[in-house]
Amino acid sequence: MMRYLDRYSFPEDIKKLSSDELGLLSYDIRDFLLENIPKTGGHLASNLGVVELSIALVRSFDFPTDKIIWDVGHQSYVYKILTGRKDGFSSLRMLNGLSGFPKRDESCFDFMDSGHASNSLSVAYGMAKARDLKGGSEHIVCVTGDGAFTGGELYEGLNNAGASKSKLILILNDNEMSITRSRGAFANHLGKLRLSDTYLGLKKEVKERLSGLPGDSGRALTRAIGSVKDSVKYLLLDGATLFEELGFTYIGPIDGHNISSLLEALETAKRAEGPVLIHCLTVKGKGFKDAEEHPEEYHGISKRSPYAAQEKSQEGKSYSEIFGEKLTELSVKDESICAITAAMTDGTGLKLFQKTLPERFYDVGIAEEHAVSFAAGLALSGMRPVVAIYSTFLQRAYDQMLMDVCMQNLPVVFAIDRAGIVGEDGPTHHGNFDLSYLSSMPNLTVLAPKDGSELEAMLEFALSRKGPVAIRYPKGKSIKNAGSVKAAEIGLGSETIIQGRDAELWALGSMFEKAEKAVEILKERRPELSIGLINPRFVKPIDSEALIASAKRTKNIISIEDNVIAGGFGSDLRSFLAYVGADGEGFARLSSIGWPNKFIEQGSQAELFERYRLDAAGLAERIEKIII
Amino acid sequence: MMRYLDRYSFPEDIKKLSSDELGLLSYDIRDFLLENIPKTGGHLASNLGVVELSIALVRSFDFPTDKIIWDVGHQSYVYKILTGRKDGFSSLRMLNGLSGFPKRDESCFDFMDSGHASNSLSVAYGMAKARDLKGGSEHIVCVTGDGAFTGGELYEGLNNAGASKSKLILILNDNEMSITRSRGAFANHLGKLRLSDTYLGLKKEVKERLSGLPGDSGRALTRAIGSVKDSVKYLLLDGATLFEELGFTYIGPIDGHNISSLLEALETAKRAEGPVLIHCLTVKGKGFKDAEEHPEEYHGISKRSPYAAQEKSQEGKSYSEIFGEKLTELSVKDESICAITAAMTDGTGLKLFQKTLPERFYDVGIAEEHAVSFAAGLALSGMRPVVAIYSTFLQRAYDQMLMDVCMQNLPVVFAIDRAGIVGEDGPTHHGNFDLSYLSSMPNLTVLAPKDGSELEAMLEFALSRKGPVAIRYPKGKSIKNAGSVKAAEIGLGSETIIQGRDAELWALGSMFEKAEKAVEILKERRPELSIGLINPRFVKPIDSEALIASAKRTKNIISIEDNVIAGGFGSDLRSFLAYVGADGEGFARLSSIGWPNKFIEQGSQAELFERYRLDAAGLAERIEKIII
Repeated sequence: MMRYLDRYSFPEDIKKLSSDELGLLSYDIRDFLLENIPKTGGHLASNLGVVELSIALVRSFDFPTDKIIWDVGHQSYVYKILTGRKDGFSSLRMLNGLSGFPKRDESCFDFMDSGHASNSLSVAYGMAKARDLKGGSEHIVCVTGDGAFTGGELYEGLNNAGASKSKLILILNDNEMSITRSRGAFANHLGKLRLSDTYLGLKKEVKERLSGLPGDSGRALTRAIGSVKDSVKYLLLDGATLFEELGFTYIGPIDGHNISSLLEALETAKRAEGPVLIHCLTVKGKGFKDAEEHPEEYHGISKRSPYAAQEKSQEGKSYSEIFGEKLTELSVKDESICAITAAMTDGTGLKLFQKTLPERFYDVGIAEEHAVSFAAGLALSGMRPVVAIYSTFLQRAYDQMLMDVCMQNLPVVFAIDRAGIVGEDGPTHHGNFDLSYLSSMPNLTVLAPKDGSELEAMLEFALSRKGPVAIRYPKGKSIKNAGSVKAAEIGLGSETIIQGRDAELWALGSMFEKAEKAVEILKERRPELSIGLINPRFVKPIDSEALIASAKRTKNIISIEDNVIAGGFGSDLRSFLAYVGADGEGFARLSSIGWPNKFIEQGSQAELFERYRLDAAGLAERIEKIII
Repeated sequence: MMRYLDRYSFPEDIKKLSSDELGLLSYDIRDFLLENIPKTGGHLASNLGVVELSIALVRSFDFPTDKIIWDVGHQSYVYKILTGRKDGFSSLRMLNGLSGFPKRDESCFDFMDSGHASNSLSVAYGMAKARDLKGGSEHIVCVTGDGAFTGGELYEGLNNAGASKSKLILILNDNEMSITRSRGAFANHLGKLRLSDTYLGLKKEVKERLSGLPGDSGRALTRAIGSVKDSVKYLLLDGATLFEELGFTYIGPIDGHNISSLLEALETAKRAEGPVLIHCLTVKGKGFKDAEEHPEEYHGISKRSPYAAQEKSQEGKSYSEIFGEKLTELSVKDESICAITAAMTDGTGLKLFQKTLPERFYDVGIAEEHAVSFAAGLALSGMRPVVAIYSTFLQRAYDQMLMDVCMQNLPVVFAIDRAGIVGEDGPTHHGNFDLSYLSSMPNLTVLAPKDGSELEAMLEFALSRKGPVAIRYPKGKSIKNAGSVKAAEIGLGSETIIQGRDAELWALGSMFEKAEKAVEILKERRPELSIGLINPRFVKPIDSEALIASAKRTKNIISIEDNVIAGGFGSDLRSFLAYVGADGEGFARLSSIGWPNKFIEQGSQAELFERYRLDAAGLAERIEKIII
């Protein structure tokens, strides 16, 4: 039998389908997701959870006249399927392929390139205000998970949108999870709402708003709602909820897997005035038993591709695992160490720490600002907090790092995971700006390990320091983690592996291995060249002695980093050499290699490094060209 | 009659004073503030509003065993007076003088260097957790204004602290103002609480918590509260409040000018378990009629010093005024322009815009993240938003600038006020990091005007661009604003004022005037030198043609900027020259002048520029030394 997905053309045909057919469509879509996502990798569980919600949204609204913002955006696959992008799923998250997030360049049905959490309501509210100023009447819809409600910006959006009369429909997709389980007082509040006695009817205030509608629509709606009294799964809560205190009309909780209930709730919301919140209860991984039971494992899955076997054969652990294990080991011995994550317990490798030392483990939700200020508070009272956050998300806490930690010179350790290019998640998730924003922070020491063993040593070293230290390391596995670098060695500064007459490569962190291979390639191709290799370890403060010695010794210093060139490691080296006057005649010429100053697209790490000539072969070519 | 302030030694003696004497002390303190703050300048109104609260806090708690965090911190003057720092007020906010904010270096009674808003609860919660881990029993108190509750991080703190069982006392100092009037749904919620029917007694839950106390303290307290039924001004509200939904025990609203009520509330809070919020109602400027009626004008006042006359005689408007007037003028003609401020309508010069075009004016509260994402939403829907934020506070929105605006290449204009060193407010308020954090943002154009006339032209130019533009300008007055720079001129790039054989000064924005004077000084002192002067206008993209021409023409390029050297304008010039190969033999040598890579202390702008040899005389010396 031909699937609905193949028989019809979406979104046009969705209005033709009956209620039963919409239900069948949801089966088709689940099949499609379960068939396709494992091939490419991607966010499976969250998309299984929003199948019915996405169907109801596309059915109820007139996109792209109406507009929708997906918070974070990794739950937009079903929406993509229903807005003409089904065929793109064979290239999901691949170089030049379909994005795993909404992208304006990809479709007129996407209105904002999202990727980070909790900002969607603010953006949607801006769009609502623009509509009002222009006298438009289109609907603005915003879909956020309950996890996004742990981030402060969402609350700033609620505070502003709630006080306004602007029409806006905020959908809270409540699956009781952010990526790990949502934590905090807000989650408790949602829990209470979920369990609240259902009260069927409309709040007086809602009734008034509805009866204020032009024509008969208000009364008709009130009647319609009255008539479905026995069948509807939604309710309009009588008690004051946090959302109502903040100015939103609250509709819910709704069964987010019942399309009829969803459609009714959406129609109610469309007719109400001012900001409305629809509280949908969904199950992450819905319809796939494994994913329902283990949604964390199915949050993002790796592709089962020809490369899978190869990936498995790689020796070694991920940097995250190495970090988590070493931190736990150190923390068992030192009771002052605390670990903080912003909703990324698994991702940052802190699961073991959580199990071993739960009393010193803090998952603060998607709240990077709080994470850093909270760490400052712990450090002010004598603890040794370690904040593990992905590079791209730490951007949210720039101010707190600078003011609350660096200005106070507090011993907080920042474990900056996913630094550099991360691959398939694309520009919102690449961590290639951190060196640029960290390098001007006074008092901060910035380190980058060349492998897992060095990460261990650096972590120990960082925890022995009296001021703040950031360690940045990449996504992925560390091939060499069997070494035995001692923490004390780190304190000595950089490591000169080979000296070189024609060039010395200052290859930072994850780029060290690639540079090492490039040296091998050049040794074969141009045996007459003498190329040195240095493991800088320190981005800040720079190992000044070693750098000056290198500048005196070689003709070319070539900095190599997994960061944008602008304001990065190479730029720091250049400034330092100029400052000490080691940049003129008689000194090496400095060339910098890194990512160009633009947002880097999605693709596998290997493909992107190759495309931008930052893999071993590309580096070898570029080094050769610089020397000659 | 000798004042209580002089007769006793604080904090030691405060426990000796009777209730009546504490009341008299409050008069003394108000007199002291009214006598002293106008001499030095400082935050008058907010401190007049917390006289009784500060007295009650110092009386009730045992600082420094107990600990207190003041959100923002400009309301800590009374606390400073009562913790042994009265005599320091003659040097308040001066170079080497008493800070206008809490400073750990200044006193063991300060526990955190604060300055920015909404982070205090997160820090306090960190301290509370550290105490619990160590088995301590000291109280952790946090005092926040209602304005701080418009910032998202406060909510992240509430969400985490509210879910925990950690004892923590959060005091909401509610004066219905942030700096201008608090806006948003949360302010409406507070308004409802203020007007709520008083219900005298304890919530069942609170009763249970209290009766769970060891010994008789719980029962005694319950009795005590019962016995003051007729006299107390505080109440324990029966209805669910937003705070209770978030896990806090709510006590309030309390009359924040009644010391007895405050003391009772504090004692209650001390004995309760878990996180407690005390809601105090205060009047900003209390006790000084002018300040009560016009708290905005008295938020921060300038000193009435020998310099006052001189300051008044300065011609010209402030950069903020020039910006506000020009933006209003342009916006009257162009209906797509919107103005956004984060609780700084007056400070950013937007009062005129607010009056003239209220429908396109948005004060979002102390919510910089929302401000930027909201602007992105407006821009996505075809509006031309201008976000006016002080440089130091824009740090809060680093991620939103990068992801929501620059990545989407949206036409948002950032009017970055108070860029560079601001003077008396010190390190938390200096705006000397923005060039470093902006320079790696792809798609962003960064401009710096040399005077008010150029600011006008740049604003018009920025509003004609298709992508994001940031204009950074300093605190203070623009001497030359009678010029008539046209927007089209800005598009031409830098302005070469004089060419120079020995050096060309690339003097950015506010440093241009100082550099101009330095050239004059050197012309007198060393007439044989040929020193050129360039007004760069663009930080990004760099005017490459002019820079290369300069590098070919002169022996020394000297970049001069009001930003830290690390990653700043000079660093950008250096990277560019290296990139195009205009940095070796036959090209100018580049030297960079700016602020050293550390946090700069408080002091007048003039004093700080002099101390760091960034005034005209200092520059002249440094330039001379570079040339020779």
